[in-house]
Amino acid sequence: MVEALIFDVFGTCVDWRASVAREVAAVLPEVDAEAFATAWRGEYDPAMARIREGARGYVPLDDLHLENLDTVARAFGVRVPDRLALNAAWERLDPWPDVIQGLAALKRLAMIAPCSNGSIALMTRLARHAGLPWDCILGADLARGYKPQPEVYLASCAALRLPPEAVMMVAAHNSDLAAARAVGLRTGFVARPREHGPGQVQDLRPESDWDVIAEDFADLAAQILVLRSRGEVSCAGA
Amino acid sequence: MVEALIFDVFGTCVDWRASVAREVAAVLPEVDAEAFATAWRGEYDPAMARIREGARGYVPLDDLHLENLDTVARAFGVRVPDRLALNAAWERLDPWPDVIQGLAALKRLAMIAPCSNGSIALMTRLARHAGLPWDCILGADLARGYKPQPEVYLASCAALRLPPEAVMMVAAHNSDLAAARAVGLRTGFVARPREHGPGQVQDLRPESDWDVIAEDFADLAAQILVLRSRGEVSCAGA
Repeated sequence: MVEALIFDVFGTCVDWRASVAREVAAVLPEVDAEAFATAWRGEYDPAMARIREGARGYVPLDDLHLENLDTVARAFGVRVPDRLALNAAWERLDPWPDVIQGLAALKRLAMIAPCSNGSIALMTRLARHAGLPWDCILGADLARGYKPQPEVYLASCAALRLPPEAVMMVAAHNSDLAAARAVGLRTGFVARPREHGPGQVQDLRPESDWDVIAEDFADLAAQILVLRSRGEVSCAGA
Repeated sequence: MVEALIFDVFGTCVDWRASVAREVAAVLPEVDAEAFATAWRGEYDPAMARIREGARGYVPLDDLHLENLDTVARAFGVRVPDRLALNAAWERLDPWPDVIQGLAALKRLAMIAPCSNGSIALMTRLARHAGLPWDCILGADLARGYKPQPEVYLASCAALRLPPEAVMMVAAHNSDLAAARAVGLRTGFVARPREHGPGQVQDLRPESDWDVIAEDFADLAAQILVLRSRGEVSCAGA
């Protein structure tokens, strides 16, 4: 029985690329804003990798984003007028068009929370900006680690006092779902074929028999409603 | 500049006594339900004290509530038919009448979150039951300790990446505010003279010059709005 749905956020719930590019364009008119946003995001995984491998202690993503901004600004040969203000672009990402209504419907069926590599601080401000109606904020900060480390999924389940099999991880990334499934969570896939722009090649389709495979969050809510009518989903506090 | 308001929950936001007594009355018709609820709550502080003092490692409040239920049932000489179901009464507490509308108004002015001794699991389910529109859940679980330990307030500020002076603790308990002020937070007092029933003697009035002293959450929201108009409160993501 699923009692909570936890969500990847960057790419799955929000369009980081267009949102960050918009803010880059506003303060750095001399650069190709989409290329800059893509390069900034490109530093994301290598920065976390050092922490996952134990070469560096846990540092919240806000700090990694700022370090990565400096790296990318150097590579583009530009000086950022207000580094902290531009870094906060990650708190002002816009949701995909189906997300707000979909989450509102899902919230009536189960607990909903982000399980992101973003910090509580980042996810809280982003939720206010984008109108994401989370019940609580889970993810990296609770485990002091980064997905796909198993402890991030497990700490999120533990914070809700639920066994992994009572929690469904929802993501647009097959690797995120594979890691969640490996530690016992249920899995839901929603494709986001424009996350990386028109030339996207990865995660265009589900690469495993995920428990739910949905077109978008409206379709996800419809499928979860069917599971609920079969007694496979339950709803705390509603 | 205050950017977040964090709240005590039991007593300040919700009427634990009447709510727990209602559930006790439903399953233990043979006992005085209000006396049982008061006795159950009476075990709360001694149970946390052992953890604060280091005599016991951190255990979430859900578990302490269950242990305390067994203690009180023994003292009352009753057998509880479904211990876990009755223990979940703490997830079904009703808000004081001014709370929902007050929090909705406050949420437009600053980030809002519980800073309670309840776990993330408990606070999340309670928020769904009572309709508390938190931006995120802070408190005991983040610090693995119990108020009034300073680390609970400080971990809650740190999770939002705010210095203590940018966070206001709101409570109906003078001791909670004194502990928060001691580590640099701003303070807001709202009296709840019926929390302990008609014979309440403690916390009937503010016992210090707290930064804000309000009649109820509507008054609190009105006073915070004035502070905002003076530039002393700022509003992330709205």
